[in-house]
Amino acid sequence: METTRRIQLKAKPQAFVSPDLFETVLVPRRPPGDGEVLVRTLYLSIDAAMRGWIGDARDGSGRVAVGSLMPGYAVGRVEASRHPGYGAGDVVYGAFGWQDWAVAGAGELVHKVDPALAPLSAALGIFGHTGLAAYVGLIDIGRPRAGETVLVTTAAGGVGSLVGQIARNCGCRVVGITGSDAKAQLCLEEFGYDAAINYNTAANLRAALAVVAPDGIDIFFDTVAGPIAESVFPLLNDRARIVQCGTLGLPPGGPSDGPRLAELIVRRQLRWQGLSVADNFARCPAALEKLREWANAGKLRHREQLYDGLESAPQALVDVIAGRNLGKAVVRVGR
Amino acid sequence: METTRRIQLKAKPQAFVSPDLFETVLVPRRPPGDGEVLVRTLYLSIDAAMRGWIGDARDGSGRVAVGSLMPGYAVGRVEASRHPGYGAGDVVYGAFGWQDWAVAGAGELVHKVDPALAPLSAALGIFGHTGLAAYVGLIDIGRPRAGETVLVTTAAGGVGSLVGQIARNCGCRVVGITGSDAKAQLCLEEFGYDAAINYNTAANLRAALAVVAPDGIDIFFDTVAGPIAESVFPLLNDRARIVQCGTLGLPPGGPSDGPRLAELIVRRQLRWQGLSVADNFARCPAALEKLREWANAGKLRHREQLYDGLESAPQALVDVIAGRNLGKAVVRVGR
Repeated sequence: METTRRIQLKAKPQAFVSPDLFETVLVPRRPPGDGEVLVRTLYLSIDAAMRGWIGDARDGSGRVAVGSLMPGYAVGRVEASRHPGYGAGDVVYGAFGWQDWAVAGAGELVHKVDPALAPLSAALGIFGHTGLAAYVGLIDIGRPRAGETVLVTTAAGGVGSLVGQIARNCGCRVVGITGSDAKAQLCLEEFGYDAAINYNTAANLRAALAVVAPDGIDIFFDTVAGPIAESVFPLLNDRARIVQCGTLGLPPGGPSDGPRLAELIVRRQLRWQGLSVADNFARCPAALEKLREWANAGKLRHREQLYDGLESAPQALVDVIAGRNLGKAVVRVGR
Repeated sequence: METTRRIQLKAKPQAFVSPDLFETVLVPRRPPGDGEVLVRTLYLSIDAAMRGWIGDARDGSGRVAVGSLMPGYAVGRVEASRHPGYGAGDVVYGAFGWQDWAVAGAGELVHKVDPALAPLSAALGIFGHTGLAAYVGLIDIGRPRAGETVLVTTAAGGVGSLVGQIARNCGCRVVGITGSDAKAQLCLEEFGYDAAINYNTAANLRAALAVVAPDGIDIFFDTVAGPIAESVFPLLNDRARIVQCGTLGLPPGGPSDGPRLAELIVRRQLRWQGLSVADNFARCPAALEKLREWANAGKLRHREQLYDGLESAPQALVDVIAGRNLGKAVVRVGR
């Protein structure tokens, strides 16, 4: 009987995520049913959002149940098909999870990938949900206008580095917040930020931001929330937009208190909106076309940090959550 | 020399607003300059938003400086004009403030009022900024769809009672939160709410809401913020919209802490937006046309609480902040 390795969640974290929360099991591989395909996983995407998916042991939060396959977007090759839209050899992008082989139907398959256009792993990064999150979040939700100031957290990360460059391409002033001097330098030298601040060494983050964003902030693309984001809110201009794409900076262990923001929201007529990539796959064609145009013109660079082997996925996730990666984290699973 | 009475802010409140924070002074009345008109104030609007305008003594907040005219929207009659667009006898709506006579230019004049269409005071309520706030907030920001559930705080108030009825006219299920049994009854019997809850007597507001909004909440039109609003957030559906139109329920004395909402905003892809009526006067023609159509068809009722004499404005404001009024609070100043 043919088998597949799969990585499943062994336990929810008490506070911090470590590789031993996951276990690799060998399970039988069933053939695809009607409307399904069998996919050989080639690359897995590791995303900060997965922190929210696995949740917390103390309040039982998170949609990934203990003992179930760790979900995740991946690129794979169709090895057998009983779906009329896909044939053997097609490269596909979808929600295949952390496993060597996946049986996928309409619920998991998102779209085909053209291997001629870019390296396959880019279908998870700049030309996948990472690029889509940056594009939809900044363009559709943020609606940037030339001359506005855009602030980006995790500014050198997979999503953040694209947001910063797209904002610059839209004629905005772009300021990044990041967690190390090396990343701040990368923001300035590789991603074209006008300014970048290392929140770990800034004595007073709000004061430092006020210096580099003297006209205030019009769009706040945020992936961290918590105290760092709360330093930014007082600097928002009238009618500023906040794109909430993650909450990596919240204290672990469930709900916490922070400053109430309703008064500021009314007084400055702010718009604060949560971003779900899965809700926006319909925007893919337009977004990908524009992302390719910028990339081909040399106006959109991306970095990738490659991990090798399915078994490295848990450590890759730990690195992403800790901000230790430089660029989009991708795991190579098969060839 | 001709004079006018004006009410000015004598001191900012320590916590609660009382009439003795205001004083009435007699000041000279200057003739209108080029591009200005002299207006006899007829009706003043008293709005909960004024609480934010006057701010707090402890942090010096609020845009109304001590010793200056208390601002406010009013309806008046042009007595003399040096503005090409207005003539003596015109009835006008604008930001004339708490005074018997105002000299107003382009910055204060909003539009003319047709006295044949409705009682003049309605130009401050259903056919003024009150109606505009309800319309723009619910229709433009909330974007209701038939079958959705809309929750409204200060549900029997000037804005809230219109929001509830507009939501019902859009085919929504409408639930109100209010502060007395009499107002809850008014919500059900006069404004057509499907359910209304008195937050002062509900043992567990969130549980009570879950019963009357079994399908969750799609639009939250909120004027209070603070603990009451925080009971509502966990009941919001995916892609719910929060229209923040005021923060009357926040503890007095400046910033306070409450539950951080960023995680919920991402997980449920919420959109939380502050509403400023002054930003939306351009929407007046479309909004007023629709409001008149509903009112003429008997599908939009409004209540007014009339106070008599300019000198009653401070007490009217105290009543509005305390929720003691039933319907839109208006002060009759002149005839």
